Amino acid sequence: MLPEQESVRRELVRRIEDAFARSGFAPIDTPVLEYAEILLGKGGGETDKQVYRFHDHGERDVAMRFDLTVPFARYMAQHRNELPTPFKRYHIAKVFRGENTQRGRYREFMQCDVDIVGSDSVSADLDILLTITEAFLAIGVRGVTIHLSHRGLFNRLLERLGAADRAVDALRLVDKVRKIGESAVRDQLREIVPEPAADTIMAFIGAGGGYFDVLSTLEELVGGPDADTERLRAIGLALETVGLEGRVQLDPSITRGLDYYTGLVFETFLEGSEQYGSVCSGGRYNDLMALYSAESLPGVGASIGLDRLVAALEERDALPEAYGRVHVLIAMVDEALAGHYHALASQLRTLGVYVDTYPEPRKLGHQFAYAEKRAIPWIIICGPDEAAAGVVNLRRMADRDNRDGLSLSAAAEQILEDPRGTP
Amino acid sequence: MLPEQESVRRELVRRIEDAFARSGFAPIDTPVLEYAEILLGKGGGETDKQVYRFHDHGERDVAMRFDLTVPFARYMAQHRNELPTPFKRYHIAKVFRGENTQRGRYREFMQCDVDIVGSDSVSADLDILLTITEAFLAIGVRGVTIHLSHRGLFNRLLERLGAADRAVDALRLVDKVRKIGESAVRDQLREIVPEPAADTIMAFIGAGGGYFDVLSTLEELVGGPDADTERLRAIGLALETVGLEGRVQLDPSITRGLDYYTGLVFETFLEGSEQYGSVCSGGRYNDLMALYSAESLPGVGASIGLDRLVAALEERDALPEAYGRVHVLIAMVDEALAGHYHALASQLRTLGVYVDTYPEPRKLGHQFAYAEKRAIPWIIICGPDEAAAGVVNLRRMADRDNRDGLSLSAAAEQILEDPRGTP
Repeated sequence: MLPEQESVRRELVRRIEDAFARSGFAPIDTPVLEYAEILLGKGGGETDKQVYRFHDHGERDVAMRFDLTVPFARYMAQHRNELPTPFKRYHIAKVFRGENTQRGRYREFMQCDVDIVGSDSVSADLDILLTITEAFLAIGVRGVTIHLSHRGLFNRLLERLGAADRAVDALRLVDKVRKIGESAVRDQLREIVPEPAADTIMAFIGAGGGYFDVLSTLEELVGGPDADTERLRAIGLALETVGLEGRVQLDPSITRGLDYYTGLVFETFLEGSEQYGSVCSGGRYNDLMALYSAESLPGVGASIGLDRLVAALEERDALPEAYGRVHVLIAMVDEALAGHYHALASQLRTLGVYVDTYPEPRKLGHQFAYAEKRAIPWIIICGPDEAAAGVVNLRRMADRDNRDGLSLSAAAEQILEDPRGTP
Repeated sequence: MLPEQESVRRELVRRIEDAFARSGFAPIDTPVLEYAEILLGKGGGETDKQVYRFHDHGERDVAMRFDLTVPFARYMAQHRNELPTPFKRYHIAKVFRGENTQRGRYREFMQCDVDIVGSDSVSADLDILLTITEAFLAIGVRGVTIHLSHRGLFNRLLERLGAADRAVDALRLVDKVRKIGESAVRDQLREIVPEPAADTIMAFIGAGGGYFDVLSTLEELVGGPDADTERLRAIGLALETVGLEGRVQLDPSITRGLDYYTGLVFETFLEGSEQYGSVCSGGRYNDLMALYSAESLPGVGASIGLDRLVAALEERDALPEAYGRVHVLIAMVDEALAGHYHALASQLRTLGVYVDTYPEPRKLGHQFAYAEKRAIPWIIICGPDEAAAGVVNLRRMADRDNRDGLSLSAAAEQILEDPRGTP
């Protein structure tokens, strides 16, 4: 990451963190390295191949975390009695997977997770949906739609079609509908279930219309209302109360088939950038700590994949302003004035100005080129005469507009009035 | 890390980052995992034993970074032409070492590094000293003193004493003076150099008085002024101009003998918490990229060890306020109002209030206990009547002071006027 890119990522992370904190989530941290048995379970599952695993100096079998959920489950089991219930946490950190790298898919990537555990309520579901919506608002992204569904309904549909034993394959296929298209999914479904069942599944995942229209269709296909459809109805009504109905779409093609979700599931797409896949996914699970504790703890959560989000925003030219942009460079006219330049810099910083100082007495043209390379919009030039008189000369880079003989506070004022230095 | 501890760490990191950015440093990020040969060199040095190193899925020999300087050197060599010169970067991230854990010493710990490369000037030295001073101010820490010295002087002293060939042992001993005391160091020095030489070394590292007094003593002991004493003089004068002279002490017992520093070296202690060791160390090196490039690039930098700093601040009871403290909890009086509660929460957040919502319709006493556990100072209680009337009841936890029938904006105003809810 070059500094310009990393500055933008810092800005994104800070805004996302602010949104999480404003919504009442508390930060936790867990180690990057944990015992392999803790991260993978005694057997180890499908993800094993992607996990970095080795023996440490004490010959302990350790692994690098591959997501933030498994360490969170271990953390909850360990600290259960010290934490409030329900517990709302966020965790923004890198995870590590030994995958092949391709565009938007990295060996180490940054995840921004929020979870609420210890509550199975509509309110907690809503809290997560609202929090990620507010996070996307905070980073200034428009055209975000949350595609929502419920795992229970799909399972019930398969049972009703007598295809419950082919659930894994069916889920895997339905998951591909965005990639390979409806007709390919239909063809392949027909190879694993009878044609009418395949058609019913396609009708299910293709149900269209407004939130409650889709809900009616689903209810009909699964054989009437039940607790799961009631949950979706309650969520839909609450979304209207909160004013979020336009940002959430009931979309039964969302199954997150290979995850541990048991209730609500969702993925989030940026309109027109669907090819980047979901930039934020999540759902409800009914037993976070299953591996580590006899106590059953339901939860709901979401995870924003920062790297994929950055890739999508970059293509849309919708990245936010970089964090920590420098406003002004203090040029070095005379090396003997180094202390004076740093005293000026220090005073400017207390006034809220972000200041760089050029450390070598090189030609001014060279120092201007440095400012241009760093996109610093203002320069302060101060020779021995100005230093003696207690003033500075301020120059706007964009149009070489000079404002000479200013007091330092006047210079600070002009810089802060126009921090990007746009003529 | 429990959430309360992690919130404080987040606050510290954010303030340190703000100080770095205000001083014109740009963020970079590098991978946690790199090829072992890149991090360790072809042979690998003294640190090797502490490095986590293994073969990845492609049978590549990889290691986890053990500091932020080596990856920075690799980064500079790789991106030399894309970066401005001089280049000022900060990097706040975890590093990993397979050490035994003891108090204040962890297997993975957070470092906050700033460096300026491409300039050998007094101004760059000063910039680093000033930036870390501002970082400590930003986190509200008082009683910070930077202990400064120059590696060149100590080397010159040893040469003059005919003990240059025992430099490594002598440096190792002098480094211990804070731990084992002067007399023990003197005794052990006498075992490796003649007694008069040992006494001269002790006079050197024990030189006392103001900055320029110490400098005169050193100058005398090493045989007169040279470029290194002139550098210290220029730094001392500039520190006075910047008003930092009270925070910096010339202290020849600082050698950082086992590091790669070649010029200025410093360590930073919190008065009265010296037993935690240096909370910020650094210095000048004359060839950052030696391993990776034929080009020689001088630099100066500093590194704040967050874990040690937190331990020291904790003992002094000087930790800052936690990041993201929740101001108010919206209680759940009636489950059917979940949407309404989240609408209230959402509006409060746009007004700058940090809001949590209780997700279950449990007894109010239980919800109050949750607020207490999370140290949330205010509660909003809103039943069907209040919801219908468009008002809320606000309660201050500390003294159970109730303010009933407020509009939401009035409630927000009262909360923000007294965000800690102190009667």
